[in-house]
Amino acid sequence: MSDELVGSGASTRSARARVRLALIGTGLIGGSLAAALRLGEDRPFITGFAANNDAYRARELGLIDQACASVAEAVDGADWVVLAAPVPSLAALFGQIAPVLASHARLTDCGSTKLSVIQAAREQLGPAFSRYVPGHPIAGSEHSGPDAARPDLFRGRRWVLCPANESQQAHGAELQALLAPTGAIVSQMPAEQHDRLFAEVSHWPHVVAFALGAAIGRGDLAQQAIEFSGGGLRDTSRIAASSPELWAGILLDNAQAVLASGERYRRELDGLMDALATRDRAALLDVLERASQWRRRLD
Amino acid sequence: MSDELVGSGASTRSARARVRLALIGTGLIGGSLAAALRLGEDRPFITGFAANNDAYRARELGLIDQACASVAEAVDGADWVVLAAPVPSLAALFGQIAPVLASHARLTDCGSTKLSVIQAAREQLGPAFSRYVPGHPIAGSEHSGPDAARPDLFRGRRWVLCPANESQQAHGAELQALLAPTGAIVSQMPAEQHDRLFAEVSHWPHVVAFALGAAIGRGDLAQQAIEFSGGGLRDTSRIAASSPELWAGILLDNAQAVLASGERYRRELDGLMDALATRDRAALLDVLERASQWRRRLD
Repeated sequence: MSDELVGSGASTRSARARVRLALIGTGLIGGSLAAALRLGEDRPFITGFAANNDAYRARELGLIDQACASVAEAVDGADWVVLAAPVPSLAALFGQIAPVLASHARLTDCGSTKLSVIQAAREQLGPAFSRYVPGHPIAGSEHSGPDAARPDLFRGRRWVLCPANESQQAHGAELQALLAPTGAIVSQMPAEQHDRLFAEVSHWPHVVAFALGAAIGRGDLAQQAIEFSGGGLRDTSRIAASSPELWAGILLDNAQAVLASGERYRRELDGLMDALATRDRAALLDVLERASQWRRRLD
Repeated sequence: MSDELVGSGASTRSARARVRLALIGTGLIGGSLAAALRLGEDRPFITGFAANNDAYRARELGLIDQACASVAEAVDGADWVVLAAPVPSLAALFGQIAPVLASHARLTDCGSTKLSVIQAAREQLGPAFSRYVPGHPIAGSEHSGPDAARPDLFRGRRWVLCPANESQQAHGAELQALLAPTGAIVSQMPAEQHDRLFAEVSHWPHVVAFALGAAIGRGDLAQQAIEFSGGGLRDTSRIAASSPELWAGILLDNAQAVLASGERYRRELDGLMDALATRDRAALLDVLERASQWRRRLD
């Protein structure tokens, strides 16, 4: 297969061989990507590998064409490699993929942080670094695994690319074409900005929800809280049901930016608690009104 | 009308005069109660008063039968008075209602806190205190006003009663019958326990969400956060769109219990931030796992 195969556009692609896509990680994100791509016009031939038995389950579910027993087997002959595995596993995966990656093959990842992942790719990929496109689909669920996969997971959601150089930027355009069947809105930003932004809109909110769940779960009203919870608590704590392993990895990986978001949050929280302790209605209202004004813009 | 009118049960009620219900406050909660009761078999004649123009809007929407220009006019001849007004207004309303309340009439409120409301009722209602049933429907929305009212708002949700003596307990049974068309699950608990429980499951989670919305809204990424937010941030911050006026009132009213919940939350938050700052994966995982385990029980 030549380098133009994908670049030449969807209209001619089907007349040639099918694009081969290797999916490393076939859980919620990888499985949903596979599900969306299989509904597209020029569906790629998808091989899959996962550290657990997820790839075989993904094959059973019809998400992928072939479950593989190793990274090397999945990547063999692939035109595109998509890493949809947890952030802490990516550095090792880059190292395993580098020696078996075809010279034309491009790769991307779905990690929630970008600076550390790009650094690992730079160290591990060698010349293939120029064919790597750092990516991050903004979609998720508190559910995980291939059984939670659904083809519309990315529809209307952002898929952020953080190319670190011009070569990666060029391959980013091809990736955007490949992702078309997902219905995601592809956009670009520098990795540093990405990490600060996602600390703010995703990573820190997870800390907030985890702290809430942990505090209630440890309290003497933990059981009654379940019986008497309303929609407010359910929504505010929903993402606390997320995978602890996955989120420990993300939070540690982006700890600096997460803590910066956290410091600003704690200032607001302290202000609210002080206002409550001193029964300072004006100070309380000030924070509540700022919060409400911002949140209403989100709807 | 005699005192047995409602107590004699729904089957004979329709053969006599319709129950008259006065609704003080015709917003989301009052309007939704009216909407549910009007779908019931023995629908009461509902008069309504609201401090703003909500009662006239509720009449336009067909939620109530008659919009009144004063509390006295609405309460005149009522068998049941339902206060669905913000907590800080309840003390004054008890004072206005006491002199115009029929000697058989019973009343309840929908306030999110109970100890302070019961205290106000005790001070303001005189002998009618024994015909007052402290109540709290566990339902709500970040939307408000009669236009947000819907008959199924309370279906399957808890409606907590906190009778302070035996007389109130007896009237609580009548209230439960009256509320049947709402589909709410009526239960009882002491007011002190109620206030601690709702600090935990509702009031403090609102503080958490308000702090999150205020912190993001003040940050330099406030606009980008809106564009790149995922479901996690939307859910975690949803109740920050609630009415600041309403929530300042609730939080101040239940400040002591809210702060107690807050202290326990802040310990977990500090633990998470320390674990992140020191890159202590085990300590981080401990909190995340406790949070996740508790939250999964909520589903």
